[in-house]
Amino acid sequence: MTRPYNFSAGPAMLPEPVLQRAREEMLDWHGSGMCPAEMSHRGKEFMSIAERAETDLRELLGISDDYRVLFLQGGASSQFAMVPMNLLRGHTSADYINTGSWSKKAIAEARRFCTPSIAASTEDDRFSRAPVQDELKLSSDAAYVHYTPNETIEGVEFPDIPDTGDVPLVADMSSTLLSRPLDVSRFGLIYAGAQKNIGPAGLTIVILRADLIGETLPGTPAMFDYGIHAKNDSMYNTPPTYAWYLAGLVFAWLKELGGLEAMAEINRRKAAKLYAAIDDSKFYANPVELRARSWMNVPFTLADPNLDGDFLAGAKDAGLLTLKGHRSVGGMRASIYNAMPEAGVEALVDFMREFERTRG
Amino acid sequence: MTRPYNFSAGPAMLPEPVLQRAREEMLDWHGSGMCPAEMSHRGKEFMSIAERAETDLRELLGISDDYRVLFLQGGASSQFAMVPMNLLRGHTSADYINTGSWSKKAIAEARRFCTPSIAASTEDDRFSRAPVQDELKLSSDAAYVHYTPNETIEGVEFPDIPDTGDVPLVADMSSTLLSRPLDVSRFGLIYAGAQKNIGPAGLTIVILRADLIGETLPGTPAMFDYGIHAKNDSMYNTPPTYAWYLAGLVFAWLKELGGLEAMAEINRRKAAKLYAAIDDSKFYANPVELRARSWMNVPFTLADPNLDGDFLAGAKDAGLLTLKGHRSVGGMRASIYNAMPEAGVEALVDFMREFERTRG
Repeated sequence: MTRPYNFSAGPAMLPEPVLQRAREEMLDWHGSGMCPAEMSHRGKEFMSIAERAETDLRELLGISDDYRVLFLQGGASSQFAMVPMNLLRGHTSADYINTGSWSKKAIAEARRFCTPSIAASTEDDRFSRAPVQDELKLSSDAAYVHYTPNETIEGVEFPDIPDTGDVPLVADMSSTLLSRPLDVSRFGLIYAGAQKNIGPAGLTIVILRADLIGETLPGTPAMFDYGIHAKNDSMYNTPPTYAWYLAGLVFAWLKELGGLEAMAEINRRKAAKLYAAIDDSKFYANPVELRARSWMNVPFTLADPNLDGDFLAGAKDAGLLTLKGHRSVGGMRASIYNAMPEAGVEALVDFMREFERTRG
Repeated sequence: MTRPYNFSAGPAMLPEPVLQRAREEMLDWHGSGMCPAEMSHRGKEFMSIAERAETDLRELLGISDDYRVLFLQGGASSQFAMVPMNLLRGHTSADYINTGSWSKKAIAEARRFCTPSIAASTEDDRFSRAPVQDELKLSSDAAYVHYTPNETIEGVEFPDIPDTGDVPLVADMSSTLLSRPLDVSRFGLIYAGAQKNIGPAGLTIVILRADLIGETLPGTPAMFDYGIHAKNDSMYNTPPTYAWYLAGLVFAWLKELGGLEAMAEINRRKAAKLYAAIDDSKFYANPVELRARSWMNVPFTLADPNLDGDFLAGAKDAGLLTLKGHRSVGGMRASIYNAMPEAGVEALVDFMREFERTRG
């Protein structure tokens, strides 16, 4: 069967060459006779997989030795708690920038551990834009500044990295990490659930400046302590080995493709084609200010919401899956992560034009 | 290549039919054109996978509607904290039975949240036995009693379920769940990391009496709150979907095999053959009292530890992998979980006899 184009916001498409490789190695990784999921995490076979994955990720993002890279479980939702539990370090408050549904979840969870100060919020603008630098009310005594560079649900992406001076910047990059080159040195901590650009759900990448490690709140579980994971090279307990292996295949695929510069060029084109199709039409609309439109998640509405059902059904028949927008926003959403081929975006654009022509 | 027999304590062998099926479905699950790892966790395809897995697990273990079954992340190490954070419910202490390395880890983590009372300990006997009922010093005001029915490292298994009266019994069943039938109604909470008998690392099964849900310690992260996971059917955040899918394939495989009665019969035979080979020899020894010998993890020593290296090298050449004992115990350890074929145990026994004959 022809593989459909799956526009799911995550879990999302994986690169077909990665799936092909995983299939080939399912019962016999490199002549070992084992599936990677069967290997002891402390054996030399899996250790080589784990180290290769970290090396490739460091190379792709240009991560310096000042940073630790952790391969954890629990998703961004666990990071929402781990960040304050580990980074407050004696402070009682942290700054949070509120730009959408995932910012709000991070803020709500932080309230269990400190008093988050809202440095800026675009909620009154229905999360349709990213704040500019001058809007940010940063506190000098904040433990850190947290923001969500790309809001998966609202499709809003910061065009620039906020300047927070000496206060460590913390970013939930779940839906944007690896979509383009990144200056990691601007950040204190970056985290990302894997299920968009990295691999399968169940793996969380944390990139953490080493000097921030060491002081946790009383009552922090061992599994929520970055220091314990760092000290044990992400093997304090059994890590999600198969997910780690698949992420490694994704990193190798990105390197073969030419790295993040090459990936960015493709992503830029994909996003431009889809936004052009929306903007060229009077039938489709995207509410986000131009400078803050996401490369990864493109929400759009139909002029007549009564046609939403027909649009989704027709798209599905055309092999274009999971285009329904998040229930909190409505309309449609096309998530076009790294693994979405450019041909997938072109097929969506063709379908949108034909739907508008016949039904619009 | 012929698949080797991998005696790893976990991650461990997966049933070959499960891997074959996963390979076949890697790029196209049931005509969907998607890998299960690519599916939105809220889409109907994955929902059907998730529900089937839970239904099969409930059927295999005869789990009543009084219990919730959760598919979580974080491993048993997260449960070590989640159990006190959720089950103390106003109590200040809980009883812990100390029978080996994993009991000790559970106790150490519990100390972050309460005062664990040691109801019994076999540490003075070098963890070579399971306490009998009369030894247990149970406190009437304990929030719960925690024990480790099978100690993966020491190879000690409780032959009976302790009687704790009205105090909820909590069990870390990571290395024994699904090895045989179980009376779940005797327990308040059962948890198990998947990477022994259930599926790949990165998935944790929790079986929890519903009436115990609802009260957490202040400062409990949302991701450590059983109530939040139960309310959201394990989809408060994105669950480890591919691991959940693989676990479902394992459950289906167990059902095809005849369920846990049939599995228990095979496991009983496997363990009997291996212990007989040890006991029939003056060269190999297992330190565990007869009534408490584990069906799943069989540690044994060679009469001359200087031969350990040759034993391991020869075993590897014979396709018998990962037999080195845990560093804290030394010697050898053969983990013979459900997916280890009986022929694997026979091959190990043959190798042991031949090694003793030529080198013993």
